[in-house]
Amino acid sequence: MPKNLIYEGKAKRLYTTDNTEEFLQEFKDDATAFNGLKKDKIPHKGELNNQISSIIFEHLSKEGIPTHFIRRVSGTEMLVKKVSIIKAEVVCRNVAAGSLVKKLGFTEGIELDPPIVEFYLKSDELGDPLFTDDHILALGIAMREELDIIRDFTFRINDILKKFFLSRGIRLVDFKLEFGRDMNGKVILADEISPDTCRLWDLATGKKLDKDRFRFDLGDVEAAYKEIMERVS
Amino acid sequence: MPKNLIYEGKAKRLYTTDNTEEFLQEFKDDATAFNGLKKDKIPHKGELNNQISSIIFEHLSKEGIPTHFIRRVSGTEMLVKKVSIIKAEVVCRNVAAGSLVKKLGFTEGIELDPPIVEFYLKSDELGDPLFTDDHILALGIAMREELDIIRDFTFRINDILKKFFLSRGIRLVDFKLEFGRDMNGKVILADEISPDTCRLWDLATGKKLDKDRFRFDLGDVEAAYKEIMERVS
Repeated sequence: MPKNLIYEGKAKRLYTTDNTEEFLQEFKDDATAFNGLKKDKIPHKGELNNQISSIIFEHLSKEGIPTHFIRRVSGTEMLVKKVSIIKAEVVCRNVAAGSLVKKLGFTEGIELDPPIVEFYLKSDELGDPLFTDDHILALGIAMREELDIIRDFTFRINDILKKFFLSRGIRLVDFKLEFGRDMNGKVILADEISPDTCRLWDLATGKKLDKDRFRFDLGDVEAAYKEIMERVS
Repeated sequence: MPKNLIYEGKAKRLYTTDNTEEFLQEFKDDATAFNGLKKDKIPHKGELNNQISSIIFEHLSKEGIPTHFIRRVSGTEMLVKKVSIIKAEVVCRNVAAGSLVKKLGFTEGIELDPPIVEFYLKSDELGDPLFTDDHILALGIAMREELDIIRDFTFRINDILKKFFLSRGIRLVDFKLEFGRDMNGKVILADEISPDTCRLWDLATGKKLDKDRFRFDLGDVEAAYKEIMERVS
């Protein structure tokens, strides 16, 4: 399986394989926050996120969500379907936290029912700004029909993951998704789902078990990721 | 007509009158930009914007758009219907400029067809951030039905004003609207429509005839506002 690095992001690398329809997705220990201003390594994060993401993608597949996940192939690597990423990151929120509080004045912790779905332009240079359907269509990032599919998938994924985490004593506060177009142009779920991309609060204590521990120097970062890994296994 | 100041904004003051269903809206010469960081006075701006807004509101009324405008009562004052302002500013864009270029990487000057409609949370404290239908509904700022009405009015106003300005040799690049609920809870157009709230480019030369002359120290600010006043009269 020859590896040519074709993309390196903040938390993952993507390699070609000898199958032109498949990529190898490698999870790194690197952690960044605040648009790259804060940087560090979290020991074993790559391995933990690869395991957690694999379990979650498998669960979503079983529930009928098309994803890029094929199989986990090593501690830090998974084999995925080749997709071209749609440059609109999708955030789904069940509870107000993060930028909703800081930028829009929401009260942290209030329930959002129905959940809020947001789009962010995937651009390090521009700092991943919030944008809307109108912007996405005008920029040619996705078509109307694709946006409708993405929104529909996002609500379905939210329903599935809320239950999944709830049964493991975890409150799914919010999460980020990325979608891509596969070789046939079909929209499928890509990227990862892990404590890097979700806010996960312990149901009993409210303890944060996600990247916010890193962002805000709350300590026990690795332990929190491990806790999530154990609960989802 | 007794006057009690009930609201002072960056460019206008609002007073009660002896009619409980009417306010007096006074236009100031004060100009601010970049969320209040840049401040100055533009001589005669109050008077010019009052005249321009009055003419535009009258034109919109004739075309069937319900507005708060009753009549101009002095150089800098107009009588308006009492409304409670909906705290979502509406921006409609026919051409990419301003934050679309700076924050989202659009190329300045490209045509947007269909036009882009955006909502901004009206909050000096939070710096008027972009937000979406989902946020507006979750914050209780407006109801679904009201948002649909606002979007519909905005497209109709855009069609009317594009023609209005075009016939006067002006390209309507973008504009900001504020809507309010009248005494019966009906959504009507409020605030002002002037070179403070529109981007207006001369059709022949591309010369900016609006508040961007103040924002970016382009000079001839008062002359530009006067030019607009003369062309719309």
